[in-house]
Amino acid sequence: MRILGVDPGSLKTGVGIIDVQGNRIRHVHHSVIRCGAGDFDDRLHILFSGLKLVIAEFHPTLAAIEDVFVSKNVNSALKLGQARGALIAACTDSGLRVSPYSPTKVKQAVVGFGRADKEQVQHMIRILLHPPEPLAEDAADALAVAICHAHHAPMQTLTGTLR
Amino acid sequence: MRILGVDPGSLKTGVGIIDVQGNRIRHVHHSVIRCGAGDFDDRLHILFSGLKLVIAEFHPTLAAIEDVFVSKNVNSALKLGQARGALIAACTDSGLRVSPYSPTKVKQAVVGFGRADKEQVQHMIRILLHPPEPLAEDAADALAVAICHAHHAPMQTLTGTLR
Repeated sequence: MRILGVDPGSLKTGVGIIDVQGNRIRHVHHSVIRCGAGDFDDRLHILFSGLKLVIAEFHPTLAAIEDVFVSKNVNSALKLGQARGALIAACTDSGLRVSPYSPTKVKQAVVGFGRADKEQVQHMIRILLHPPEPLAEDAADALAVAICHAHHAPMQTLTGTLR
Repeated sequence: MRILGVDPGSLKTGVGIIDVQGNRIRHVHHSVIRCGAGDFDDRLHILFSGLKLVIAEFHPTLAAIEDVFVSKNVNSALKLGQARGALIAACTDSGLRVSPYSPTKVKQAVVGFGRADKEQVQHMIRILLHPPEPLAEDAADALAVAICHAHHAPMQTLTGTLR
């Protein structure tokens, strides 16, 4: 199975794709979608269409997305929420269901404990997947989300399609 | 010009379309997209694909969306944000820019003052547009958003396309 992981953000979003066979995982792709400094609807469009392009190129069969960090600021929650909504729409519009995971679960799946810092996650992703290109923080997180889903996806979701 | 108005919600979203010629406005369509009680990604998908269908059927050239009510609850802001993000993605994916309006501006455009209640908005929409079918609250709000955009859309946005 081929799993898409998404680390959502309203300025930049990490995207990672892995292949899983039995208990072997293989790096397929990682990238960061950067939204630039345009109008907010333009930025949402860049997120949406950028993720659609990645899905169209690599054809993942399963998708997972990290829960956004819920700050106490309602306005930033609204912005992050809109980014996440556009990204989920890109997945479902491509026929992919999206499984959500908390940051703690994602870290546990990769580093073994939920309070690992960003650098530890990046380090473990390099060891586990040997990505061929340099690995930005957001892309490492996205690959970690995909690995987390590989651990948790129950058998019945293996069909992976929404409709 | 043909204007789409959207009143976003994570459970149901109002959609309204009007035609504007000079200072005459005409009712074209209104409906409410209901998300049901499924998984959250299913609900976002219903919003996204429901709005895409309306756009594909009626071909609006401009779009406007109401700012979501920012409650003090961060979790409901996240939910509403995700709904709004999926809806904006449906517009931009159809080549439509989306102009945001505050609830106060929308009410001012229709009733004349910003603290009008929902029933007053519904009443004025009936008088202004004579909708042929019964008018739910959310659909009335969506038509009000479209009328608000007709008042405010500057000439340079009349091309209405994003790309």
